[in-house]
Parts: sequence; structure tokens; C-alpha cells
Amino acid sequence: MSDIAYVNGAYTPLEDAKISILDRGFLFADGVYEVAAVIDGRLVDNAAHLARLERSLKELRLECPASMQEIVEIEKTLVARNGIAEGMVYLQITRGAAERDFAFPKGVKPTLIAFTQEKNILSSLYAEKGIRIVTVPDQRWARRDIKSVALLAQVLAKQAASEAGCQEAWMVGPDGYITEGSSSTAFIITKAGAIVTRPNSEAILPGCTRLSVLALAAEHGLDVAERAFTAEEAYEAAEAFLTSASNLVLPIVSIDGRAIGDGKPGPHATRLRALYLDFARATACSS
Amino acid sequence: MSDIAYVNGAYTPLEDAKISILDRGFLFADGVYEVAAVIDGRLVDNAAHLARLERSLKELRLECPASMQEIVEIEKTLVARNGIAEGMVYLQITRGAAERDFAFPKGVKPTLIAFTQEKNILSSLYAEKGIRIVTVPDQRWARRDIKSVALLAQVLAKQAASEAGCQEAWMVGPDGYITEGSSSTAFIITKAGAIVTRPNSEAILPGCTRLSVLALAAEHGLDVAERAFTAEEAYEAAEAFLTSASNLVLPIVSIDGRAIGDGKPGPHATRLRALYLDFARATACSS
Repeated sequence: MSDIAYVNGAYTPLEDAKISILDRGFLFADGVYEVAAVIDGRLVDNAAHLARLERSLKELRLECPASMQEIVEIEKTLVARNGIAEGMVYLQITRGAAERDFAFPKGVKPTLIAFTQEKNILSSLYAEKGIRIVTVPDQRWARRDIKSVALLAQVLAKQAASEAGCQEAWMVGPDGYITEGSSSTAFIITKAGAIVTRPNSEAILPGCTRLSVLALAAEHGLDVAERAFTAEEAYEAAEAFLTSASNLVLPIVSIDGRAIGDGKPGPHATRLRALYLDFARATACSS
Repeated sequence: MSDIAYVNGAYTPLEDAKISILDRGFLFADGVYEVAAVIDGRLVDNAAHLARLERSLKELRLECPASMQEIVEIEKTLVARNGIAEGMVYLQITRGAAERDFAFPKGVKPTLIAFTQEKNILSSLYAEKGIRIVTVPDQRWARRDIKSVALLAQVLAKQAASEAGCQEAWMVGPDGYITEGSSSTAFIITKAGAIVTRPNSEAILPGCTRLSVLALAAEHGLDVAERAFTAEEAYEAAEAFLTSASNLVLPIVSIDGRAIGDGKPGPHATRLRALYLDFARATACSS
């Protein structure tokens, strides 16, 4: 089946899905995005993603060219037309195409594009064997709470992870504390059993999966501590894991080449993945 | 005359100049750019721009899809076909269009686009009356020395300037020192007559016009000091000015609402503009 994408009101084959070279997403990274997982052909945790999209748009004073209901319809249409049982829907809104000038253009319609990607989410090999993390300096801008497409620092971090034989990079701020992964939220579990993750602020993206996993952990009587932690504390943790929309919960078995716990996926991370998966399936929106 | 742009090997009307929604410039700000001024239909200081382009590409390990000679040919062709006597040539290279994934894709041809803009450069109203500056926090990422399209912080800074009735924003780092303008280099001239600008480092873009103006200043016996300065020092300066490819040298008459010097363009800034203009015309490459 050939992929269909959405571009400014029209469904079109992906190979014809194009935007102007004057689009401010292309020239200035002046845009925001969201990625929602699809499981069993249904959108996972999508209300949280759309709430975050609205927040990102508001922070950048970016007008949304469609209602949230229309956006959900576009997402569902793409999932159905592309026959996505498992994967993601990607959505991006930019400040539109205009004569190049840094300040906001006037009277320009924002750009809205969307496409889907197939991906094994449920049967991830990494869920079974765990992933490896490398730490890198956090080189990003000050407003990581906005899910903008200004992702060059994250690209370089992920590339560094890949070249180190790892699957994700955890970024370390100038203060020595880990902020988050290049496209995921960072968690450790202390030997005393506390689930530790950095509190939301402008320093990190407010993760949708993070939010749900913290709620599930609390609901199941697990101890949660929202505080920053260092790589050194992570090396000594009982377990570590990450969360993201397209990876759900993945156990971490090594950080900077040091085995975490016994070097195998830990029981809490494995349980949290199962809990999140149940939650995701129970709450996913039908297409 | 309808504008012609260049996209991946082809000259095309600007309204048809499009790139894939999967282009990494659009999805990740994974690209670099240059802007060269055009005066008398000729490219100004272009060797410096191309040297910086090569440096930016190298820092991001981005392959150049054309030789520097081919790039100059593209720039000259656009200037000639669009009949640009005064204005700019914009050039952007990205890591190409690929299935969305943060790490560098393999075997993907980079994207190269270019277009022109008309602009009054010689007879700038602001050269005569001077411009107003507002200071804002520098929210950018750590590698400002790479001329990447991850420009969202600069967009927000320029918008803040515009809303404050100013023409440019000077960005102030957490250490209290001014880094540079949102799309220009920042200079002050002390009461003792020293031209002060921040030394090049990862904190600022190595300005091409900055480089030429510093060389011209030294050549004409002016005192140059490359050191950081604060907004407070700037308020008390004898003069202030900025440099950029498309604005050459512009005198600054107020910063954060405080008049600089007597609130009129200063003699040194005016002289440096004239010196740079002579240099630019004498060295511009004919198309």
C-alpha cells in the first residue's frame, strides 16, 4: 500500500507531499509537532498529545489552522488509509510560507502536515533485552518545554548514541544533572525502590507517556520522587528506563558502558511497561 | 519579473519551489544556510560566506551536494535571472529527505535550495537615522558558531524587538554579557574610541561582515578590542552599531530606550559603513 500523507487540506501520496522552500518550518524551525503511537489501529494517549500541541502553539503564539477535532479526524483518516495497525502518526504545524524575515509574518496561513510510520511497538526486541544509553552534554536551547522542530541538538545526541552502539542519549546540563533523553524521558529506580524522574520545567519536554506512567506508578503503590539526578547516581541505580510515545516504556541495561543493576531489564521497568500497555489499549481511540 | 528559485538541480518558479515534508530541514532543523548581499548585481564578500558554509557543513558532518564553484554559479544565475541589482542570495543545505528518525540517515542525498530577495541595501533609511535595539535573554543552543536553520530563538528575539518598536534584539547570556544580535553582530565604541565586539567562540556566529569590518578598522588605525561587554556598558558607550551581510553596517541610536551618545548615528559607525561599502563594491564578484 502506498503511503498517504496530509498537507494543508489535501490527502496526497507521500512522494508528492511537499511544502514551499519558504515555509518557516524549513527556514527557521518555526513550528511544533506531536507524535502519537498507534496500537491495534488506534491512537494511544492522544488527548494528552493534543493538549501538549495546544500548549506548544500557545507558547509560540502560533495559530492552529484546524480545530483539535479536525486534527483527530486527519490522524484517524491517515491511520485507516495507510492501514497502520502498529506505528505512529506524526503531525507538524509551522508558521507558514512567507517572504523570509525573522519576525512573525502577518496574514499568513500556518502549515499543517501529517504522515504515518509503521513500527513494531508491542513486540519490541528492546523491551525484552533492554537498551544501552550514553550520556552527552545537553546543547539545546532554553525552552525544551515547547515541542518545536528546532531539533538539531537532539539529532546530534541521537547520532552520538548510535555511534557509541547505544539506542538513546541522555543529555546532561551544565549543572551536572540529566535533563532527559534525545527523544524520551529519563527515569531511574533507586535501591530503596523510588522511581525518580526530573520534574517538569522549561528544562525538559513534559512527556505524555511520562505523565501516564507516573500516574500508573502512584496508582499501583509505587514510590515516585520528582527530582533531578546525575549520571553518577544513575550508574548506581537498581534500574533505569525511558518513556516515549513510540517506545512506551523501555528498560535500560547500561549507561556509559556501566551495567545497571544486574545488567538485565529490571522488574519494575518491566511491570511499568505492562501497566502502560494495558492503559494504552484500554484508553486508545478507535479509528 | 517572476522569481526563479533553485531546488536540487533545477531552476523553477518560486511558487513551484518545494521540498518533501520528510526533508530533515523541515522536520529537525538539520541544515545550514548562508545569505550573501548583492550590490550592483554582484555578490558581496562571498568567499567568506562560502568558507563559513564549508565550516558549518563540516561541523555537522553534512555532505555538500555541489562544489563551491557550482554553488557560486547557482547564486550568479539566480541574481542574473531575477535581475537583482540590490538584495540577497539565500542558500540552504539540509541532510535530505528520509524516513523520519533522529540519527543521520544513510545513503540520502542532501537538499540544496537557493532563492533571491530584493532589498534596498545602499539607500537604507536606517543607515541615515540609525536603529533601535532591545535586549532579550539569549535562549539559543550551545553551538551558535554553526549557521544552522535551528533559528526559533532568533525568531522570538526579532519578534520581541519588533513589538518593542525596535529593529533588532541583542541577546544577553546567563553571564550577563551580550552575545550578538538575532541576525547581526553587536559592536560598541567606548568613549576612549575603542571598537569593542565579542571574540568568536561557540557563543556567537563568526560574522563575515564582522571580520571585514574589524580588518578595515585596524587598517585605518582604529583601536579594536575583542572582548565581551554588558548592556550596562553599552548604554554608556559613545556609539553602537551592528554588522550583517544584508545590512552591512548600521548605526544604533538607542538600546533599551536609552539614547546612545547624542542619540544620532555616530561618526565612527558612519565612517565604518562607508569603508565597508567601498570594500564591498571593490571586491564583489561580477555575475
